[in-house]
Amino acid sequence: MKKQNKKVSPVELVIVGSIGLDTIATPETRRAGVLGGSVTHACAASSFFVKTGMVGVVGTDFPAPFLSLYKRIGLNTQGLQRLKGRTFRWSGVYEADMNNRRTLKTELNVLAQFDPVLPEPYRSAPCLFLANMQPGLQLRVLDQMKAPRYTVVDTMDLWINTARSEVEAVLKRIDMVTLNDSEARLLTGQSNLFRAAAHIRKMGPSHVVIKKGEHGAMLFSPAGTFLLPAYPVSQVVDPTGAGDTFTGGLMGALAKCGKINEAAIRQALLVGSVMASFCVESFGPDGVATLTPEAIRKRLRAFQAMLSTKGGRA
Amino acid sequence: MKKQNKKVSPVELVIVGSIGLDTIATPETRRAGVLGGSVTHACAASSFFVKTGMVGVVGTDFPAPFLSLYKRIGLNTQGLQRLKGRTFRWSGVYEADMNNRRTLKTELNVLAQFDPVLPEPYRSAPCLFLANMQPGLQLRVLDQMKAPRYTVVDTMDLWINTARSEVEAVLKRIDMVTLNDSEARLLTGQSNLFRAAAHIRKMGPSHVVIKKGEHGAMLFSPAGTFLLPAYPVSQVVDPTGAGDTFTGGLMGALAKCGKINEAAIRQALLVGSVMASFCVESFGPDGVATLTPEAIRKRLRAFQAMLSTKGGRA
Repeated sequence: MKKQNKKVSPVELVIVGSIGLDTIATPETRRAGVLGGSVTHACAASSFFVKTGMVGVVGTDFPAPFLSLYKRIGLNTQGLQRLKGRTFRWSGVYEADMNNRRTLKTELNVLAQFDPVLPEPYRSAPCLFLANMQPGLQLRVLDQMKAPRYTVVDTMDLWINTARSEVEAVLKRIDMVTLNDSEARLLTGQSNLFRAAAHIRKMGPSHVVIKKGEHGAMLFSPAGTFLLPAYPVSQVVDPTGAGDTFTGGLMGALAKCGKINEAAIRQALLVGSVMASFCVESFGPDGVATLTPEAIRKRLRAFQAMLSTKGGRA
Repeated sequence: MKKQNKKVSPVELVIVGSIGLDTIATPETRRAGVLGGSVTHACAASSFFVKTGMVGVVGTDFPAPFLSLYKRIGLNTQGLQRLKGRTFRWSGVYEADMNNRRTLKTELNVLAQFDPVLPEPYRSAPCLFLANMQPGLQLRVLDQMKAPRYTVVDTMDLWINTARSEVEAVLKRIDMVTLNDSEARLLTGQSNLFRAAAHIRKMGPSHVVIKKGEHGAMLFSPAGTFLLPAYPVSQVVDPTGAGDTFTGGLMGALAKCGKINEAAIRQALLVGSVMASFCVESFGPDGVATLTPEAIRKRLRAFQAMLSTKGGRA
């Protein structure tokens, strides 16, 4: 047996957000105790590209196999807190077309006490993804980062409605925001997405990504607008976590590429879309976590061929 | 004054379908007596690219200014029939989001006697667009064409429900079909658009274009799949005719290019999308008919930049 001097890779991307146990009802089936939360989905995607440090909180009831999954996919879990009590739980139901969902129940549990303290090695990471959570906590994370090269934030209608000034304070300090079309309209009062995006860019972020689910995404940046259809899957099993998987994949690809320019960001959006397409094909993060790099590359090549205005096979 | 020996350009594209007077209600306003019909919208778009011969029927009440418009945009109107009676009339109302519309009233009038006879010079045209109409009439047109290089057909739920065997007979004889997502599902019984398109390709056409309105279009061909978002407009005034404008622009660009290959078809889809974007910005065909070639080229360049996965301005 060879002895190896195992070197710990430095964290290149920090992802902070929720970890939860989901109960998900789709028109086809119902699953309880599914591993979920924004950090889970985002990290499952980014872990293929760069060393990712996760920050989140679980309760004492958090199943050991889920902890093992985090380790198995190579995450740095130093930022994972375990508090006395029950893990955050979310329960929701999807309508027949899978485009709309209704939250049935939210139990914050230990998430109510979450204080996102970043382990020292995380603080000098070049990239940061603040996944959806209370914007006051997002500000606390930003305060701990030394000099990140690129930061992205996700938010939701709840915070826009209840903590707008904190949402605005976050937007002033980050490079990119990802949000869905209805959230962009809610945040700006503009129904037209071009005007909404221009409005949001004036609030701080140079890059605005509007997510439209099965209809793709739009990027608004200093270089103009980029329209990206979604990678079409043959069957949507569970859309939960697709948005976080998208941004996790996007940030993983961007952090790996190292260059932050328009071309790199557009390519990273393609990667995010491909990762999200794998996410919706199964429950929880397993579909993404068990991928091979070759399966990702293959679908990315197929996607690029589908987007080529010049024609030609993958 | 110079005397010119005016040479009549040969017809490069024949478009057959309906001509009507529309009454359109949108959430903002209501207009009556708007020039409409599939041929009108399709020809307004194609006329920028190639000499287009129109085939359709109007009544004795058809306003002279509308005939002048056809001439002014350079259409060959030899195939335009004028029958005793009233022109076809359609009346519809759009819902708040402009995505769904309800037909309030249809008066066939002279359209009920329509027999699409092609003038001799049309019969050797290289390209043909059979816009939406009774599929029996579409078959009659196909019988009169000598040896078209490329033919496209559009259809609708009404014919799929009431004249399926004739729709199938048309599909066997054409190169491309354009239809919207719900029609593709209705025609095949497949909810997944990939499977629906594969099914339709087995029915005859090598190319299937599924139109998704503001969400763009998908092309299914022997070379694979092409995903195209819609060109985003800042304000939709009236979507009536957008689908016909799309296919008219597509066929105009394809006929002008002369080459029928995957790259040419994908580029033609971009042109169709750009023409449709102009269509929805105003009532009737005027928004398209009054364009300049430079305005079209400018929007096409902007669209190409929005679709570039490599980044970069127009």
